[in-house]
Amino acid sequence: MTIQTPTANDTEQGEWVLTLVCADRPGIVHTVSGAVVAASGNIVELQQFSSAEDGNGGHGGGGRFFMRVHVEAPVAEDVMREHLDRAAVQLGADWTLDRVGRPIRTLVLASKAGHCLNDLLFRQRSGWLPVEIPLVLSNHPDLAPLAEFYGVPFADHVVLPETKVEFEQRILDAVEEHQIELIVLARYMQILSPELCRALAGRAINIHHSFLPGFKGANPYRQAHGRGVKLIGATAHFVTSDLDEGPIIEQNVVRVDHSKSVKELVAIGQDEESRTLTEAVKLFAERRVLLDGSRTIIFR
Amino acid sequence: MTIQTPTANDTEQGEWVLTLVCADRPGIVHTVSGAVVAASGNIVELQQFSSAEDGNGGHGGGGRFFMRVHVEAPVAEDVMREHLDRAAVQLGADWTLDRVGRPIRTLVLASKAGHCLNDLLFRQRSGWLPVEIPLVLSNHPDLAPLAEFYGVPFADHVVLPETKVEFEQRILDAVEEHQIELIVLARYMQILSPELCRALAGRAINIHHSFLPGFKGANPYRQAHGRGVKLIGATAHFVTSDLDEGPIIEQNVVRVDHSKSVKELVAIGQDEESRTLTEAVKLFAERRVLLDGSRTIIFR
Amino acid sequence: MTIQTPTANDTEQGEWVLTLVCADRPGIVHTVSGAVVAASGNIVELQQFSSAEDGNGGHGGGGRFFMRVHVEAPVAEDVMREHLDRAAVQLGADWTLDRVGRPIRTLVLASKAGHCLNDLLFRQRSGWLPVEIPLVLSNHPDLAPLAEFYGVPFADHVVLPETKVEFEQRILDAVEEHQIELIVLARYMQILSPELCRALAGRAINIHHSFLPGFKGANPYRQAHGRGVKLIGATAHFVTSDLDEGPIIEQNVVRVDHSKSVKELVAIGQDEESRTLTEAVKLFAERRVLLDGSRTIIFR
Amino acid sequence: MTIQTPTANDTEQGEWVLTLVCADRPGIVHTVSGAVVAASGNIVELQQFSSAEDGNGGHGGGGRFFMRVHVEAPVAEDVMREHLDRAAVQLGADWTLDRVGRPIRTLVLASKAGHCLNDLLFRQRSGWLPVEIPLVLSNHPDLAPLAEFYGVPFADHVVLPETKVEFEQRILDAVEEHQIELIVLARYMQILSPELCRALAGRAINIHHSFLPGFKGANPYRQAHGRGVKLIGATAHFVTSDLDEGPIIEQNVVRVDHSKSVKELVAIGQDEESRTLTEAVKLFAERRVLLDGSRTIIFR
Repeated sequence: MTIQTPTANDTEQGEWVLTLVCADRPGIVHTVSGAVVAASGNIVELQQFSSAEDGNGGHGGGGRFFMRVHVEAPVAEDVMREHLDRAAVQLGADWTLDRVGRPIRTLVLASKAGHCLNDLLFRQRSGWLPVEIPLVLSNHPDLAPLAEFYGVPFADHVVLPETKVEFEQRILDAVEEHQIELIVLARYMQILSPELCRALAGRAINIHHSFLPGFKGANPYRQAHGRGVKLIGATAHFVTSDLDEGPIIEQNVVRVDHSKSVKELVAIGQDEESRTLTEAVKLFAERRVLLDGSRTIIFR
Repeated sequence: MTIQTPTANDTEQGEWVLTLVCADRPGIVHTVSGAVVAASGNIVELQQFSSAEDGNGGHGGGGRFFMRVHVEAPVAEDVMREHLDRAAVQLGADWTLDRVGRPIRTLVLASKAGHCLNDLLFRQRSGWLPVEIPLVLSNHPDLAPLAEFYGVPFADHVVLPETKVEFEQRILDAVEEHQIELIVLARYMQILSPELCRALAGRAINIHHSFLPGFKGANPYRQAHGRGVKLIGATAHFVTSDLDEGPIIEQNVVRVDHSKSVKELVAIGQDEESRTLTEAVKLFAERRVLLDGSRTIIFR
Repeated sequence: MTIQTPTANDTEQGEWVLTLVCADRPGIVHTVSGAVVAASGNIVELQQFSSAEDGNGGHGGGGRFFMRVHVEAPVAEDVMREHLDRAAVQLGADWTLDRVGRPIRTLVLASKAGHCLNDLLFRQRSGWLPVEIPLVLSNHPDLAPLAEFYGVPFADHVVLPETKVEFEQRILDAVEEHQIELIVLARYMQILSPELCRALAGRAINIHHSFLPGFKGANPYRQAHGRGVKLIGATAHFVTSDLDEGPIIEQNVVRVDHSKSVKELVAIGQDEESRTLTEAVKLFAERRVLLDGSRTIIFR
Repeated sequence: MTIQTPTANDTEQGEWVLTLVCADRPGIVHTVSGAVVAASGNIVELQQFSSAEDGNGGHGGGGRFFMRVHVEAPVAEDVMREHLDRAAVQLGADWTLDRVGRPIRTLVLASKAGHCLNDLLFRQRSGWLPVEIPLVLSNHPDLAPLAEFYGVPFADHVVLPETKVEFEQRILDAVEEHQIELIVLARYMQILSPELCRALAGRAINIHHSFLPGFKGANPYRQAHGRGVKLIGATAHFVTSDLDEGPIIEQNVVRVDHSKSVKELVAIGQDEESRTLTEAVKLFAERRVLLDGSRTIIFR
């Protein structure tokens, strides 16, 4: 297929995305941009945000500072890192540096429903989604042909109460073996153990088939039908051990009316689920998602 | 002002809106359309819905049938009513008949925030909202000048714990005195007593400043900020004694991001509140809202 | 894959969808509902519309009447047809009757871009889109593996100026051979000849990668970028010989901003194209699209 | 009324918004943030954009650099200006500095339709829209009471072909007399002369009652009805002598269907017009709109 979007720039002029988080204070932008200048770089895009503690818009002390910078510079990565490291030490900042467009190594957990996996694989193939998927792991074999069509390795493994521990170990093994950076629960219907949630904290994205915090738990479409809501939606969030309460990354809704049966709500909702999950994965893979406690900062 | 939308047709050709609810069975449309033909009428618009009991889309027995018909006929109202009554008796149906565009007599309850009241009054004046408002009743005097500008009577009445019963009686008196058909809580911040809720059942519309059932109770925008949601919204619903749980009439959402403070979320949300409440009032006034237990059937 | 939506009801209780178009006059609903009653049927859903000639909302003479009725009845199709035919003759009406959920025989024309074809095939496979696709015909071989994965026959045929007549004949042959009811141009980049447009009138749907009538012709995303528009969109319309001017079936838009390059607008727009085309095909296949001169009546 | 949103900060800690435009080159952010540091300031928010010449996302030479910075600093304005001026001279940049929340002096031109003026005045009064309106100038007296209610001076002046020059002179006089920074055409139905357009270039915002470039010229709702579009919209743009072709600031659409008459499309569209125009005025007043030739850069 021929859909092409720009990903990694392979000219000599390197392009990097830098993220940086630290305690808020004056001069951060000047310090970081100074490091970029010192590395002969040019800032192509810069986004920042200071989180006030009280959510009231004040810019007093005590907040956190978040930044994402897209830099181009004709230097080697270690030169770039050296300059940035000096700035980060000065600021007491956590930071990451990555090549723009480098595909993020992603493990997908799936079950029987194919809509989310199909959307992820199609967009990955199209070049729109900068991820590579060394493995799809499922508790059912149903989606093997879909993965096969897209040339993605697939393994299934029955999950029974007595094999759940084993399956979760297999997830952890896969994460290590394939140097996984992101775990996507593409309508994976099992609840992960608190231990696994902790092990994957900040790296695992789930899609909840509801507009959270609207309808938590099971059967949200049936709940929505009974309540006669006029909008249904989907929420992509980080996995935490507190079910359906992880930091929200992306949400979408679509208008419905009384004439829709539960089955029709499910079909309509699946569209929102697919596009919401894929969008969240894209945001993560492009290093646009930073964590601020129970909230996310999204630099679009 | 010169905004004009078509309301009542004052030609000799009368235009009516008929609503009808009964147990579902074959032949209802034929029976009702027969009554219209017998009254020399013409069906301009017809909408219907059969609610299956299980929400699964089956059309088995046990459901309720809902219909809204826009009829034009060159006959007197009593002739029209006579024919329809015969059909309704045959079907065991509840029904209403009204002139298209007749303004619904509406009591507005307000407090300090003016955005919802302003929207209602402006659109009523513009001819877009078929209501007449014989009284705005408030627990604060702040909005008196707004009502005065639009030429609408306004009364305020301090509500203290010891005067709440008195105020609620005043509401009931106003409903009777002005033959009120609809009560609108335009950001009226008091909780109505269960007795008043029951007395106004199916006639009182509230605006909740959240996308229900997302954030019930107080301070939904603060809750939304703390949770980092990406969409905020508003819900117009019928008032019931079960707070924020009444049948939903209309909902809207708008996209927000991490950069919005609680105050900004409030300001953004007020727009959604205004347009959602006004839309719900319009739907009710045009007889497009029918109750189906805890859900609404909306014929747009 | 396991996504399931209800399609054809295979119980003995038959479900039909009836469409009917005639000159507007009183009594049409009564006549048609009488035919349904005579066939022991029950009206599950009924939608109608009278088009005034002047678009001003008047219901005077001279308009056209459009109706779509979902009927269930425990009789054979020929009994049903006999009763309806009698009513239609009386009304001078054009009508169609079909089983609810019967897959519409659909020929897809494609080229190199796979996003629309992928969406159609995935949703068809999921049971969400009631079509069957006996052939995908393309002027390039690129999408053959996609069709193959979904088990749909695929043929490609180079289209050069000197072979265009031949290719168009092949389309007509395929229409006849496979008893095609709908032709979908899924980003088929060739302009059809006026003769072919006429031959396929009312049966061929195209997707235009713009919010018509905004940017007609080639390179709409480049035009949109140069003009700095804040929304881009897609339009599904019937094919006519007047390029990009056929009756509109469905439109969607999405918000963009100044930071998007032409390439990014293209990627964003492809999503709108896919979902807009698929939705239009679904509406057509469910017999929800009726033609009213240069406009469409859509019964959702 | 009691709606309150944060506007100017009146503590000793000053808050400024800086905009800066120059030829793109490395080091701009570092230079500007250096000036802020030198003025003991803190960057609260920073947005930037480099426009590539070809719209293809390349970051090569030849583009323009745009920046909006929200700064807080405990210094006098002239100190702030001195530091920034030094940086701007170095960069060859155009720049503006203003207090955050300072109301922009705005002249509103109106005619008979009140929906846009009502929205502007209500939101200005509510504290949501940082403008002050020393005069509403109209070619009809109809909206005088609306202006009076909001305590805004109003003057009307019949505009006939022979008095048009005189009226336009009056606009220019008002601009000078009241030191007007923004002129808003709130459904002012007269076409401005090319001379006036030039005189007000970059300072005058018009609302077009259509989704441009969809339906230019007169009667767009009638055009939209005839064409059967499924979405209608509104476009706020800068006034240029090239009618309806000025740089677009904001656009919105709303879904409609075949059942809407032209009159109903007008009523629905007026909502989009009001909110689109008010949003554009807010963006301008908050210094979020920068011009890039025929496009706008919007920093939200």
